[in-house]
Amino acid sequence: MEKEVYLSLYRHSLAHVLAKAVIELYGRDVQYAIGPQIADGFYYDFRLPVSVTQEDFPRIEDKMKEILKRREAWTRREVSKEEALTLFEGQKYKTELIRDLPDDEIITVYQTGDDFVDLCRGPHVENSQELMSAAFEVRSVSGAYWRGDEHNDALQRIYVWAFPNREELKAHKAMIKEAMERDHKKLGAQLELFMMDPTAPGMPYWLPRGWKMYNELLEFWRGIHDRHAYQEISGPILSKKELWVTSGHWDHYMDGMFVIPGENPDGADTMCMKPMNCPNAIRVFMNKGRSYRELPFRVSQVDAIHRKEKSGELNGLFRVQEFHQDDAHILVTEDQIADEIKDIMSIATEIYDTFGLTYEAELSTRPEDFMGDIEVWNKAEEDLKNILMEVYGEGRFEINEGDGAFYGPKIDLKMKDALGREWQMGTIQLDFQLPLNFDMKYVSRDGSQKRPVMIHRAIFGSFERFIGIIIENFKAAFPFWLNPYQVAVVPIRTEHNDYAEQVVKALQNAGVRVEVDYADKNMNEKIKAFKTLKDPYILVVGDKEQAEGTVSVTVRGSKEQLHGVKLETFVDMCRRMNETHAIDLMTGVPD
Amino acid sequence: MEKEVYLSLYRHSLAHVLAKAVIELYGRDVQYAIGPQIADGFYYDFRLPVSVTQEDFPRIEDKMKEILKRREAWTRREVSKEEALTLFEGQKYKTELIRDLPDDEIITVYQTGDDFVDLCRGPHVENSQELMSAAFEVRSVSGAYWRGDEHNDALQRIYVWAFPNREELKAHKAMIKEAMERDHKKLGAQLELFMMDPTAPGMPYWLPRGWKMYNELLEFWRGIHDRHAYQEISGPILSKKELWVTSGHWDHYMDGMFVIPGENPDGADTMCMKPMNCPNAIRVFMNKGRSYRELPFRVSQVDAIHRKEKSGELNGLFRVQEFHQDDAHILVTEDQIADEIKDIMSIATEIYDTFGLTYEAELSTRPEDFMGDIEVWNKAEEDLKNILMEVYGEGRFEINEGDGAFYGPKIDLKMKDALGREWQMGTIQLDFQLPLNFDMKYVSRDGSQKRPVMIHRAIFGSFERFIGIIIENFKAAFPFWLNPYQVAVVPIRTEHNDYAEQVVKALQNAGVRVEVDYADKNMNEKIKAFKTLKDPYILVVGDKEQAEGTVSVTVRGSKEQLHGVKLETFVDMCRRMNETHAIDLMTGVPD
Repeated sequence: MEKEVYLSLYRHSLAHVLAKAVIELYGRDVQYAIGPQIADGFYYDFRLPVSVTQEDFPRIEDKMKEILKRREAWTRREVSKEEALTLFEGQKYKTELIRDLPDDEIITVYQTGDDFVDLCRGPHVENSQELMSAAFEVRSVSGAYWRGDEHNDALQRIYVWAFPNREELKAHKAMIKEAMERDHKKLGAQLELFMMDPTAPGMPYWLPRGWKMYNELLEFWRGIHDRHAYQEISGPILSKKELWVTSGHWDHYMDGMFVIPGENPDGADTMCMKPMNCPNAIRVFMNKGRSYRELPFRVSQVDAIHRKEKSGELNGLFRVQEFHQDDAHILVTEDQIADEIKDIMSIATEIYDTFGLTYEAELSTRPEDFMGDIEVWNKAEEDLKNILMEVYGEGRFEINEGDGAFYGPKIDLKMKDALGREWQMGTIQLDFQLPLNFDMKYVSRDGSQKRPVMIHRAIFGSFERFIGIIIENFKAAFPFWLNPYQVAVVPIRTEHNDYAEQVVKALQNAGVRVEVDYADKNMNEKIKAFKTLKDPYILVVGDKEQAEGTVSVTVRGSKEQLHGVKLETFVDMCRRMNETHAIDLMTGVPD
Repeated sequence: MEKEVYLSLYRHSLAHVLAKAVIELYGRDVQYAIGPQIADGFYYDFRLPVSVTQEDFPRIEDKMKEILKRREAWTRREVSKEEALTLFEGQKYKTELIRDLPDDEIITVYQTGDDFVDLCRGPHVENSQELMSAAFEVRSVSGAYWRGDEHNDALQRIYVWAFPNREELKAHKAMIKEAMERDHKKLGAQLELFMMDPTAPGMPYWLPRGWKMYNELLEFWRGIHDRHAYQEISGPILSKKELWVTSGHWDHYMDGMFVIPGENPDGADTMCMKPMNCPNAIRVFMNKGRSYRELPFRVSQVDAIHRKEKSGELNGLFRVQEFHQDDAHILVTEDQIADEIKDIMSIATEIYDTFGLTYEAELSTRPEDFMGDIEVWNKAEEDLKNILMEVYGEGRFEINEGDGAFYGPKIDLKMKDALGREWQMGTIQLDFQLPLNFDMKYVSRDGSQKRPVMIHRAIFGSFERFIGIIIENFKAAFPFWLNPYQVAVVPIRTEHNDYAEQVVKALQNAGVRVEVDYADKNMNEKIKAFKTLKDPYILVVGDKEQAEGTVSVTVRGSKEQLHGVKLETFVDMCRRMNETHAIDLMTGVPD
C-alpha cells in the first residue's frame, strides 16, 4: 500500500475512534460534526456539554486505546437518505450534512462495534485491531465554527497527531518542538528584530536590530547586482488607476489591491497602492527611446509593495500585507533570453550558497491558453530546459508541463531549510504580455522597431519572508556578516571602559558592527544580555586584557572563553569574515 | 522711505500705468480686474478682445513709457458706493468688487490724467514723473480665472518686472536666468536623476543615477546619526484609523491623508497612509516598559510618507505627494531637553557644513492657546534661547514670540543657497501633546511612572526636497562624495579596454563609483556624454597611459587635461576626498 493511502486509511479510522471515545466519555448528548485528516494526523469537531482542556487529553487517549483493544469489526453499509436521517436522529450536524445531499443519493456509513456509526465514504480498516500499532496523541483543542462560519454554532475541535508507529510520532514531535523553538515570531521578539502592532496587521515594524540586519542583507544583495550590471530604481507607491488598467492589474488583481477612491465621479483619479513593481520598470524603460545597444536592460527595485490578505491568513513575516521584493525586471531581445536566464541562475546560486542553502528548480511550460507566438514559446522553453540541464543535469529538475502562466514560461526555485522544510523562494518569469500591453519598443540593429521580452525575477522572494526563513533556519544564530551587531564588548568594571572604547574604535574602523555596555553593573548580567541577543562574539576586557592589549573571547554557542587573543588579530579575523561572508564562526580564534 | 514701502508704492502705481496702457492699446472694451504687487513686480488681470503674445510686450512697454512721459497728476478721491458704481459702469469686475463692499463704505479711487480711474486704497505717486527712473519690463502673460475660480471668466494675466532702477532689474534678470539654468527639473532630466510620470503626480521616480545619489546621501546621514547614538527603525506605511484618531491626525489632518475605506460599516478597518512617522516611533517606544536609563531614546526613520497636495501646487522635488523625511523622534526627560537640542544643532551644523551651506535659526515660542504646564514651557523656552545664544550669539537668531505650536516651542533652521534664496530646511519641535495622547510613560530613577517629552526633528527636511535644493545650489556639479558616479573612464580605442578595466578595478577597490564606456566609438563622443552627466573626473587612457601606468584627467569645469597622473596617486586622492566629504574637486591632481 502506498504510504499516503495507508496514512489516510489509519487517520480516517482513528478519527472515528476519537468520536466514539468522546461520546463514551461525555455521554449521548455529544454532537459530532466532521473529522478530516490533516498533515500530521486529524481533528474532529464536537459540541460538548463541557470544555475539554489539556488535563482531559490522557483520558481521551486511554479511552481510544481501550476501544481499539475491543477488536471491534468495522462494517460498511449503504443506506438511503431517509434511512440515514433515522440513523443519525438527534445529531444536528450529521442531519444537516445528510439533508444537503440529493434525495436519491446512496449514503455510506461505517459502524464500529454495536453502538457507533459515522457518515463516511471510507475506506476504513476492517477491524480496530489493525490500528493497534498506530501511534497517536491528542495534540490540542481549539474553538471552531460549524462550517467555518462565525454565525454558526461554536464547536470544540480536538486535534490528534497520528502516525503509523511510535518512531514516526516521536520524530514528528521532535521536529515540532524544534520548529517552535525556531519560530521566527518568538525569536524575532527575543532578539528585538521586529514587532507587530494591532493597528497595522501584516505590516511589520522593523526594530533597530532587525532594520540593521535588513539593510546589511540589502547591501549584500546590491553588491551582487552591481557586479551583474543591474541598475536600481525606485518608483512611486501610488499610481493612478489608468496605469493598472494598462498593466491588467485593475481587471485581474483588484481584490488584492489597496484602492484610494478619487474625487472625480468618473473615477479617473482613483489611485492604487502598487502590488507589484513591474509598471515602474516599464515606465523607466519608456522614459526615452531605447536602442538594442541598451539591452539587456536590467532594472532592480526593492520598494514597499502592498497586497491585501485575509486577516486569518497573516503569519509573522511569512504572510504579510506590506513587503519588499528583491525585484528586478529585465528587457531582452529574444536571442538574449538564454544568456540572461543563465546569469540569473548564477546570481541565485551565489546568494543561496552564501547562506549554505540548497535549492531545486521547477520549470513550468506553455499552458493551453497561451498568448503570443508558439515559435517564441518553443525557443524560450528549449532555452530554459537547456540551461537547467547544464546547471543541474538530467533528472535534477522538475518540469510541470502546461503549468506556466498564459504570458510566459517560468522557473521556480525551491529551497530546503535546516528542518527539511521546503520554501518557494525565487522565481524567474518570462513575460510576452506586458511589453504588448504597454506597447514597449526598442530600435533594433537594422533600425526597425522591435518589441522586447520582459523577465520578472526575485531571488529572496521578499526581504521579509527571507528574513523569516533564515531566522528559523539559523535559529537566529546568523552568519557573522549578517548579524545586527557582530561583536559585543563587556568591560569588567567601569575602570576598564577606556580600554573597552579603544577596542570598540578599532573594530569600528575595520567596519565591524559593535555594541558595548559601559554601565556600572555586574559583568555576568551584561554577558547574559548579549547572549540572549545571540551576538557572535562577546569580548570581555579587564586588567589583564588592558595590560596585554588583548581580549577574552566567548564564541556564540560555546561555553569556554578564549583568553589572550591579540586585539589586532581579532579585528583582522572579523574583517576577513565580513569580506568572505563566512557562514560559520571561527571558534579557535588565532592568537 | 523704507525700501519695502517704496517698492510697493512704485509697483502699485506702475500697475495703474499698465492698465491705462492696455486700455489705450486695445480700446475701451477692455475689462480690467485686479493688479497686485508680487515679489519681483506686479501683474494685472484683463479681459481683452485679442490674445496678448510675447510680440506685443515691447508695444505695451513703449505705451507705458509714453504715459509716464505725459507727467500726469495722480488724484486721490473718496466716493460713495453709488458714485463708484457710476464711475466704473460697464466694468464688470470692478462693479463686482464694489458691490461686495458694505453700502456705507467710503471708496478710494485714483485718477491718472483725465481719462483713467482705478479702484485702489493707495498710496500712490503724486505724478507719473516720479516713476520715470523706475525700471520695468513685461515678463510674461498667462491665463487666470477671475477670482481664481475655474468656473469664472478666463482672463489674461500680464506679469511685469518692476524695480526702482536699471541696475536692480538687470541683477534680477541675471538671477532669474541663472535660476532657470539651475532648475532642478531641467537638470534632473539632463543628468538622469529622476523623472515624473503623469500616472503618479508629485511622486518622483528615481532613475538609477538619482537613486545612487539618494542612497549615498542616506549613508552619509546614517553615519552621522550612528555616531550620535540614534537607532533607525522602519514602520508600516498603512495603519488603521484608530492610530490616527489617537495621534489626532484623524481630526486635524484628514484632508492631507490618503485614506483607504474599509469594508466594515463602522469604518474601524479604514486605513490611512502615514503623513508622518511619529506614531511609529511611539509604538516602538511603547513596545516594552522603558526606564529612565534608556532616555534619551533616539529613533530615526526615513520611510515613505504621503501627503495630499493640490495638483496646481506640485513642483518637481520641491512640492511632492510622496517623500522621505530624514526624520527622528527623541523621548527625553524634561532635564534632558537642553543637551538634546544642543546635540541636534551640532548634527545640523555638521550636515550643512558638509555642503558649505549656511543657516539661520528662528525660535517660535508659546502661543496663547498652549497646552500643558506653563513652568515646563518657561524652562524649555529658556533652554532653547540659551542654546541659540551659545551657538549664534546675541541678535544672530530670530524669536517669533507666540508663534509656536500649541503643543510646544520649536526652532526652524533656514538655509541660504548659492543664489541667496532662503529655504526652510530643518525643524526641531518640542511636543508635550503626543506623549499625553498615547499615555507614554517611563520608570524614573525613584521608581515612579513619568511622562517623557517628545522632540520631532529633521535636518534635510526631506530627501526629495534637499536633493532638489542641492541640484540648484551646485548646478548639479555635486561634491565628489555625493556624485552618482565619481569617475568616468574613456579608453581611446577598444585596444585600451583592458587597461581601462584595470583602472576601473583599482578605483572600485578603493570604494570609488566609476563608470566606463568600452564601446567602439569616437573618444570625443564618449567624453561629451560624461560631461553632460557632470562626472567630476573623466579619465582618458590610451597607449601612453597604458605604458606608463598613468591616466589623463579632465576635471569637471576645467578645459585642460592633466597628463601623466599616476593611477595610484589618483586613486589615493579619490579615497581621501571620499573620506573627508570634500566639497571642491582637486584641480591640480598631484602627480
